Amino acid sequence: MPDSHHRNRMARKKAVVDAAIASADRDKGLLLVLTGNGKGKSSSAFGMVARSLGYGHRVGVAQFLKSRRDTGEEAFFARQPGVQWHVLGDGFTWDTQDREADVASALRGWTVAQTLLQDASLHLVVLDELTYLLNYGYLDATQVCADLAARPAGQHVVITGRAASQDLIGLADTVSEINDVKHAFRAGIRAQAGIDL
Amino acid sequence: MPDSHHRNRMARKKAVVDAAIASADRDKGLLLVLTGNGKGKSSSAFGMVARSLGYGHRVGVAQFLKSRRDTGEEAFFARQPGVQWHVLGDGFTWDTQDREADVASALRGWTVAQTLLQDASLHLVVLDELTYLLNYGYLDATQVCADLAARPAGQHVVITGRAASQDLIGLADTVSEINDVKHAFRAGIRAQAGIDL
Repeated sequence: MPDSHHRNRMARKKAVVDAAIASADRDKGLLLVLTGNGKGKSSSAFGMVARSLGYGHRVGVAQFLKSRRDTGEEAFFARQPGVQWHVLGDGFTWDTQDREADVASALRGWTVAQTLLQDASLHLVVLDELTYLLNYGYLDATQVCADLAARPAGQHVVITGRAASQDLIGLADTVSEINDVKHAFRAGIRAQAGIDL
Repeated sequence: MPDSHHRNRMARKKAVVDAAIASADRDKGLLLVLTGNGKGKSSSAFGMVARSLGYGHRVGVAQFLKSRRDTGEEAFFARQPGVQWHVLGDGFTWDTQDREADVASALRGWTVAQTLLQDASLHLVVLDELTYLLNYGYLDATQVCADLAARPAGQHVVITGRAASQDLIGLADTVSEINDVKHAFRAGIRAQAGIDL
Protein backbone atom coordinates (compact mmCIF):
# COMPACT_ATOMS: atom_id res chain seq x y z
CA MET A 1 0.00 0.00 0.00
CA PRO A 2 1.56 3.35 -0.96
CA ASP A 3 2.07 5.86 1.80
CA SER A 4 -0.35 8.40 0.30
CA HIS A 5 -3.12 5.78 0.21
CA HIS A 6 -2.38 4.90 3.83
CA ARG A 7 -2.40 8.55 4.83
CA ASN A 8 -5.76 9.22 3.16
CA ARG A 9 -7.36 6.10 4.58
CA MET A 10 -6.14 6.87 8.09
CA ALA A 11 -7.19 10.52 7.79
CA ARG A 12 -10.73 9.38 6.92
CA LYS A 13 -10.71 6.96 9.84
CA LYS A 14 -9.47 9.68 12.17
CA ALA A 15 -12.32 11.98 11.05
CA VAL A 16 -14.88 9.28 11.85
CA VAL A 17 -13.30 8.46 15.22
CA ASP A 18 -12.93 12.14 16.15
CA ALA A 19 -16.58 12.87 15.29
CA ALA A 20 -17.76 9.93 17.37
CA ILE A 21 -15.65 11.05 20.31
CA ALA A 22 -16.93 14.62 20.01
CA SER A 23 -20.56 13.47 20.04
CA ALA A 24 -20.06 11.40 23.21
CA ASP A 25 -19.64 14.07 25.86
CA ARG A 26 -21.67 12.95 28.86
CA ASP A 27 -20.56 11.18 32.04
CA LYS A 28 -22.72 8.58 33.74
CA GLY A 29 -22.45 5.84 36.28
CA LEU A 30 -22.64 2.88 33.94
CA LEU A 31 -24.35 -0.46 34.31
CA LEU A 32 -22.28 -3.00 32.37
CA VAL A 33 -23.38 -6.57 31.75
CA LEU A 34 -20.80 -9.16 30.64
CA THR A 35 -22.57 -12.30 29.54
CA GLY A 36 -22.18 -15.24 27.13
CA ASN A 37 -20.56 -18.66 27.42
CA GLY A 38 -16.97 -17.65 26.68
CA LYS A 39 -13.97 -17.19 28.94
CA GLY A 40 -13.33 -13.64 30.17
CA LYS A 41 -16.44 -12.26 31.88
CA SER A 42 -15.26 -12.20 35.48
CA SER A 43 -11.68 -11.40 34.55
CA SER A 44 -12.91 -8.38 32.59
CA ALA A 45 -14.76 -7.15 35.68
CA PHE A 46 -11.58 -7.59 37.73
CA GLY A 47 -9.61 -5.63 35.13
CA MET A 48 -12.03 -2.73 35.69
CA VAL A 49 -11.44 -3.08 39.43
CA ALA A 50 -7.71 -2.59 38.74
CA ARG A 51 -8.36 0.38 36.46
CA SER A 52 -10.59 2.01 39.07
CA LEU A 53 -7.98 1.51 41.78
CA GLY A 54 -5.50 3.18 39.43
CA TYR A 55 -7.58 6.37 39.78
CA GLY A 56 -7.75 5.98 43.54
CA HIS A 57 -11.43 5.00 43.40
CA ARG A 58 -13.00 2.77 46.02
CA VAL A 59 -14.47 -0.55 44.85
CA GLY A 60 -16.85 -3.18 46.21
CA VAL A 61 -16.97 -6.74 44.90
CA ALA A 62 -19.58 -9.40 45.65
CA GLN A 63 -18.86 -12.88 44.28
CA PHE A 64 -21.97 -15.00 44.12
CA LEU A 65 -21.91 -18.77 43.77
CA LYS A 66 -18.28 -19.04 44.76
CA SER A 67 -17.59 -21.32 47.64
CA ARG A 68 -13.84 -21.44 47.11
CA ARG A 69 -11.99 -18.74 48.93
CA ASP A 70 -8.59 -19.29 47.32
CA THR A 71 -8.96 -17.60 43.93
CA GLY A 72 -6.17 -15.45 42.57
CA GLU A 73 -8.47 -12.44 42.31
CA GLU A 74 -9.40 -12.57 45.96
CA ALA A 75 -5.81 -13.19 47.09
CA PHE A 76 -4.72 -10.17 45.12
CA PHE A 77 -7.51 -7.62 45.55
CA ALA A 78 -8.65 -8.32 49.08
CA ARG A 79 -5.31 -6.98 50.34
CA GLN A 80 -5.51 -3.75 48.29
CA PRO A 81 -6.51 -0.56 50.05
CA GLY A 82 -9.89 0.75 48.89
CA VAL A 83 -11.37 -2.69 48.17
CA GLN A 84 -14.30 -4.37 49.91
CA TRP A 85 -14.36 -8.03 48.88
CA HIS A 86 -17.26 -10.35 49.70
CA VAL A 87 -17.41 -14.04 48.79
CA LEU A 88 -21.09 -14.97 49.05
CA GLY A 89 -23.03 -18.14 48.44
CA ASP A 90 -22.10 -21.67 49.29
CA GLY A 91 -20.86 -22.93 45.95
CA PHE A 92 -22.45 -23.67 42.63
CA THR A 93 -26.04 -24.67 43.04
CA TRP A 94 -25.46 -28.04 41.34
CA ASP A 95 -22.98 -28.88 44.09
CA THR A 96 -25.41 -28.32 46.93
CA GLN A 97 -28.57 -29.67 45.27
CA ASP A 98 -30.61 -27.98 47.98
CA ARG A 99 -32.86 -25.30 46.55
CA GLU A 100 -34.11 -23.97 49.87
CA ALA A 101 -30.56 -23.47 51.17
CA ASP A 102 -29.54 -21.85 47.87
CA VAL A 103 -32.43 -19.37 48.05
CA ALA A 104 -31.60 -18.46 51.64
CA SER A 105 -27.93 -18.03 50.70
CA ALA A 106 -28.86 -15.88 47.69
CA LEU A 107 -31.05 -13.62 49.81
CA ARG A 108 -28.31 -13.20 52.41
CA GLY A 109 -25.90 -12.39 49.59
CA TRP A 110 -28.24 -9.80 48.12
CA THR A 111 -28.46 -7.90 51.40
CA VAL A 112 -24.65 -7.51 51.18
CA ALA A 113 -24.97 -6.34 47.56
CA GLN A 114 -27.59 -3.81 48.67
CA THR A 115 -25.16 -2.24 51.14
CA LEU A 116 -22.65 -1.84 48.29
CA LEU A 117 -25.31 -0.34 45.99
CA GLN A 118 -26.22 2.19 48.70
CA ASP A 119 -22.63 3.26 49.41
CA ALA A 120 -21.89 6.42 47.45
CA SER A 121 -18.20 6.19 48.36
CA LEU A 122 -17.87 3.18 46.02
CA HIS A 123 -17.16 4.22 42.42
CA LEU A 124 -17.47 0.66 41.17
CA VAL A 125 -19.48 -2.33 42.36
CA VAL A 126 -18.92 -5.76 40.80
CA LEU A 127 -21.68 -8.36 41.14
CA ASP A 128 -19.84 -11.41 39.88
CA GLU A 129 -21.96 -14.29 38.54
CA LEU A 130 -25.19 -12.63 39.64
CA THR A 131 -27.09 -13.80 36.55
CA TYR A 132 -27.36 -17.38 37.83
CA LEU A 133 -29.27 -16.29 40.94
CA LEU A 134 -31.79 -14.49 38.77
CA ASN A 135 -32.05 -17.26 36.18
CA TYR A 136 -32.70 -19.90 38.83
CA GLY A 137 -35.30 -17.63 40.40
CA TYR A 138 -33.39 -17.38 43.69
CA LEU A 139 -33.66 -13.60 43.63
CA ASP A 140 -36.56 -11.44 42.51
CA ALA A 141 -35.60 -9.66 39.28
CA THR A 142 -37.88 -6.69 40.01
CA GLN A 143 -36.21 -6.12 43.37
CA VAL A 144 -32.72 -6.46 41.92
CA CYS A 145 -33.48 -4.04 39.06
CA ALA A 146 -35.01 -1.53 41.50
CA ASP A 147 -31.92 -1.68 43.73
CA LEU A 148 -29.65 -1.22 40.71
CA ALA A 149 -31.66 1.74 39.45
CA ALA A 150 -31.66 3.40 42.88
CA ARG A 151 -27.87 3.31 43.30
CA PRO A 152 -25.91 6.55 43.79
CA ALA A 153 -25.41 8.69 40.67
CA GLY A 154 -21.96 8.12 39.24
CA GLN A 155 -21.57 4.61 40.63
CA HIS A 156 -20.56 2.06 37.99
CA VAL A 157 -21.84 -1.50 38.33
CA VAL A 158 -20.54 -4.56 36.47
CA ILE A 159 -22.64 -7.73 36.43
CA THR A 160 -21.22 -10.98 35.07
CA GLY A 161 -22.62 -14.40 34.29
CA ARG A 162 -24.06 -16.49 31.49
CA ALA A 163 -27.49 -15.88 29.97
CA ALA A 164 -28.19 -12.41 31.33
CA SER A 165 -31.94 -11.79 31.35
CA GLN A 166 -33.69 -9.24 29.17
CA ASP A 167 -34.43 -7.26 32.36
CA LEU A 168 -30.73 -6.76 32.96
CA ILE A 169 -29.90 -6.14 29.31
CA GLY A 170 -32.66 -3.56 29.07
CA LEU A 171 -31.42 -1.71 32.15
CA ALA A 172 -27.73 -1.83 31.12
CA ASP A 173 -25.76 0.91 29.38
CA THR A 174 -23.21 -1.48 27.93
CA VAL A 175 -23.64 -5.19 27.22
CA SER A 176 -20.91 -7.46 25.89
CA GLU A 177 -21.62 -11.04 24.91
CA ILE A 178 -18.50 -13.14 25.25
CA ASN A 179 -18.74 -16.08 22.91
CA ASP A 180 -16.77 -19.27 23.28
CA VAL A 181 -14.99 -19.77 19.94
CA LYS A 182 -12.44 -22.20 21.38
CA HIS A 183 -11.67 -23.31 24.93
CA ALA A 184 -8.62 -25.16 26.25
CA PHE A 185 -10.89 -27.08 28.63
CA ARG A 186 -12.37 -29.01 25.71
CA ALA A 187 -8.83 -30.03 24.71
CA GLY A 188 -8.40 -31.65 28.13
CA ILE A 189 -6.60 -28.78 29.84
CA ARG A 190 -7.87 -28.03 33.32
CA ALA A 191 -8.49 -24.57 34.79
CA GLN A 192 -5.15 -22.78 35.11
CA ALA A 193 -4.18 -20.75 38.19
CA GLY A 194 -3.89 -17.09 37.28
CA ILE A 195 -5.98 -17.48 34.14
CA ASP A 196 -9.21 -19.21 35.13
CA LEU A 197 -9.16 -18.82 38.90
CA MET B 1 -40.35 -26.08 41.10
CA PRO B 2 -40.59 -28.76 43.82
CA ASP B 3 -37.43 -29.47 45.78
CA SER B 4 -37.13 -33.06 44.51
CA HIS B 5 -37.25 -31.87 40.89
CA HIS B 6 -34.55 -29.28 41.68
CA ARG B 7 -32.42 -31.89 43.42
CA ASN B 8 -32.61 -34.31 40.48
CA ARG B 9 -31.90 -31.63 37.91
CA MET B 10 -28.92 -30.33 39.84
CA ALA B 11 -27.61 -33.87 40.48
CA ARG B 12 -27.65 -34.49 36.71
CA LYS B 13 -25.89 -31.19 36.09
CA LYS B 14 -23.30 -32.02 38.74
CA ALA B 15 -22.61 -35.39 37.06
CA VAL B 16 -22.01 -33.67 33.72
CA VAL B 17 -19.80 -30.97 35.26
CA ASP B 18 -17.84 -33.50 37.33
CA ALA B 19 -17.20 -35.71 34.29
CA ALA B 20 -15.98 -32.73 32.26
CA ILE B 21 -13.67 -31.67 35.07
CA ALA B 22 -12.31 -35.21 35.45
CA SER B 23 -11.51 -35.45 31.72
CA ALA B 24 -9.58 -32.16 31.74
CA ASP B 25 -6.49 -33.09 33.70
CA ARG B 26 -3.54 -31.53 31.85
CA ASP B 27 -1.68 -28.29 32.54
CA LYS B 28 -0.36 -26.10 29.73
CA GLY B 29 0.88 -22.60 29.16
CA LEU B 30 -2.14 -21.24 27.33
CA LEU B 31 -2.41 -18.87 24.42
CA LEU B 32 -5.63 -16.90 24.85
CA VAL B 33 -7.04 -14.58 22.21
CA LEU B 34 -9.71 -12.04 23.19
CA THR B 35 -11.19 -10.50 20.08
CA GLY B 36 -14.43 -8.98 18.78
CA ASN B 37 -15.86 -5.45 18.76
CA GLY B 38 -17.31 -5.40 22.26
CA LYS B 39 -16.09 -3.79 25.46
CA GLY B 40 -14.01 -5.99 27.76
CA LYS B 41 -11.04 -7.44 25.86
CA SER B 42 -8.19 -5.51 27.50
CA SER B 43 -9.89 -5.36 30.87
CA SER B 44 -10.21 -9.15 30.80
CA ALA B 45 -6.48 -9.46 30.18
CA PHE B 46 -5.82 -7.13 33.12
CA GLY B 47 -8.08 -9.23 35.32
CA MET B 48 -5.85 -12.21 34.53
CA VAL B 49 -2.83 -10.09 35.47
CA ALA B 50 -4.46 -9.53 38.88
CA ARG B 51 -5.27 -13.23 39.26
CA SER B 52 -1.71 -14.21 38.39
CA LEU B 53 -0.29 -11.71 40.90
CA GLY B 54 -2.61 -13.29 43.47
CA TYR B 55 -0.59 -16.49 43.08
CA GLY B 56 2.69 -14.59 43.33
CA HIS B 57 3.41 -15.07 39.63
CA ARG B 58 5.47 -12.59 37.63
CA VAL B 59 3.77 -10.84 34.72
CA GLY B 60 4.85 -8.87 31.66
CA VAL B 61 2.53 -6.51 29.79
CA ALA B 62 3.12 -4.84 26.42
CA GLN B 63 0.51 -2.31 25.34
CA PHE B 64 0.63 -1.67 21.62
CA LEU B 65 -1.00 1.34 19.99
CA LYS B 66 -1.37 3.20 23.26
CA SER B 67 0.22 6.59 23.30
CA ARG B 68 -1.49 7.73 26.48
CA ARG B 69 0.47 6.93 29.56
CA ASP B 70 -2.20 7.83 32.08
CA THR B 71 -4.53 4.83 31.98
CA GLY B 72 -5.90 3.36 35.17
CA GLU B 73 -4.38 -0.02 34.43
CA GLU B 74 -0.88 1.38 34.10
CA ALA B 75 -1.25 3.60 37.17
CA PHE B 76 -2.31 0.56 39.17
CA PHE B 77 -0.19 -2.30 37.89
CA ALA B 78 3.08 -0.53 37.10
CA ARG B 79 3.59 0.00 40.84
CA GLN B 80 2.91 -3.64 41.76
CA PRO B 81 5.87 -5.88 42.54
CA GLY B 82 6.36 -8.61 39.95
CA VAL B 83 5.02 -6.57 37.01
CA GLN B 84 6.94 -5.39 33.95
CA TRP B 85 4.81 -2.80 32.13
CA HIS B 86 5.66 -1.49 28.68
CA VAL B 87 3.67 1.13 26.79
CA LEU B 88 4.73 0.79 23.18
CA GLY B 89 3.74 2.49 19.97
CA ASP B 90 2.97 6.11 19.37
CA GLY B 91 -0.80 6.14 19.40
CA PHE B 92 -3.49 4.74 17.18
CA THR B 93 -2.33 4.53 13.62
CA TRP B 94 -5.14 6.79 12.38
CA ASP B 95 -3.78 9.54 14.61
CA THR B 96 -0.30 9.51 13.14
CA GLN B 97 -1.22 8.85 9.48
CA ASP B 98 2.40 7.93 8.83
CA ARG B 99 2.76 4.32 7.80
CA GLU B 100 6.53 4.23 7.79
CA ALA B 101 6.74 5.59 11.33
CA ASP B 102 4.03 3.14 12.45
CA VAL B 103 5.93 0.18 11.03
CA ALA B 104 9.17 1.27 12.70
CA SER B 105 7.33 1.74 15.99
CA ALA B 106 5.67 -1.69 15.66
CA LEU B 107 9.01 -3.39 15.03
CA ARG B 108 10.59 -1.67 18.04
CA GLY B 109 7.59 -2.78 20.10
CA TRP B 110 7.90 -6.37 18.96
CA THR B 111 11.53 -6.59 20.09
CA VAL B 112 10.27 -5.73 23.58
CA ALA B 113 7.55 -8.38 23.27
CA GLN B 114 10.21 -10.89 22.23
CA THR B 115 12.17 -10.31 25.45
CA LEU B 116 8.99 -11.05 27.41
CA LEU B 117 8.30 -14.19 25.37
CA GLN B 118 11.84 -15.42 26.08
CA ASP B 119 11.69 -14.78 29.83
CA ALA B 120 10.78 -18.03 31.58
CA SER B 121 10.35 -16.19 34.89
CA LEU B 122 7.16 -14.60 33.51
CA HIS B 123 4.09 -16.80 34.06
CA LEU B 124 1.88 -14.48 32.02
CA VAL B 125 2.56 -12.15 29.13
CA VAL B 126 -0.15 -9.78 27.87
CA LEU B 127 0.15 -8.40 24.33
CA ASP B 128 -2.59 -5.78 24.45
CA GLU B 129 -4.07 -4.70 21.10
CA LEU B 130 -1.53 -6.69 19.14
CA THR B 131 -4.05 -7.70 16.47
CA TYR B 132 -4.04 -4.25 14.84
CA LEU B 133 -0.31 -4.44 14.10
CA LEU B 134 -0.82 -7.74 12.34
CA ASN B 135 -3.97 -6.65 10.51
CA TYR B 136 -2.31 -3.51 9.15
CA GLY B 137 0.68 -5.60 8.09
CA TYR B 138 3.08 -3.71 10.38
CA LEU B 139 4.37 -7.00 11.79
CA ASP B 140 5.01 -10.27 10.01
CA ALA B 141 2.45 -12.85 11.15
CA THR B 142 4.82 -15.77 10.54
CA GLN B 143 7.48 -14.22 12.77
CA VAL B 144 4.95 -13.39 15.50
CA CYS B 145 3.49 -16.90 15.46
CA ALA B 146 6.97 -18.45 15.57
CA ASP B 147 7.92 -16.31 18.58
CA LEU B 148 4.68 -17.24 20.34
CA ALA B 149 5.20 -20.95 19.65
CA ALA B 150 8.80 -20.82 20.91
CA ARG B 151 7.95 -19.28 24.29
CA PRO B 152 8.85 -21.11 27.53
CA ALA B 153 6.65 -24.08 28.43
CA GLY B 154 4.10 -23.06 31.03
CA GLN B 155 4.03 -19.39 30.05
CA HIS B 156 0.50 -18.08 29.42
CA VAL B 157 0.01 -15.40 26.78
CA VAL B 158 -3.07 -13.22 26.31
CA ILE B 159 -3.51 -11.32 23.05
CA THR B 160 -6.27 -8.72 22.69
CA GLY B 161 -7.68 -6.68 19.84
CA ARG B 162 -10.40 -6.66 17.22
CA ALA B 163 -10.46 -8.98 14.23
CA ALA B 164 -7.86 -11.53 15.31
CA SER B 165 -6.45 -13.30 12.27
CA GLN B 166 -6.98 -16.98 11.51
CA ASP B 167 -3.26 -17.49 12.19
CA LEU B 168 -3.72 -16.38 15.78
CA ILE B 169 -7.00 -18.22 16.24
CA GLY B 170 -5.46 -21.40 14.89
CA LEU B 171 -2.52 -21.17 17.26
CA ALA B 172 -4.62 -20.28 20.32
CA ASP B 173 -5.85 -22.66 23.01
CA THR B 174 -8.75 -20.43 24.01
CA VAL B 175 -10.51 -17.80 21.91
CA SER B 176 -13.30 -15.56 23.13
CA GLU B 177 -15.16 -13.26 20.79
CA ILE B 178 -16.57 -10.31 22.68
CA ASN B 179 -19.55 -8.97 20.82
CA ASP B 180 -20.93 -5.48 21.23
CA VAL B 181 -24.60 -5.92 22.09
CA LYS B 182 -24.98 -2.41 23.50
CA HIS B 183 -22.45 0.34 24.23
CA ALA B 184 -22.87 3.48 26.33
CA PHE B 185 -20.69 5.36 23.82
CA ARG B 186 -23.47 5.19 21.24
CA ALA B 187 -25.80 6.80 23.78
CA GLY B 188 -23.47 9.79 23.96
CA ILE B 189 -21.54 8.74 27.06
CA ARG B 190 -17.80 9.22 26.79
CA ALA B 191 -15.15 6.77 27.98
CA GLN B 192 -15.30 6.57 31.77
CA ALA B 193 -12.21 6.54 33.97
CA GLY B 194 -11.86 3.20 35.71
CA ILE B 195 -14.11 1.44 33.22
CA ASP B 196 -12.81 2.21 29.74
CA LEU B 197 -9.34 3.54 30.52
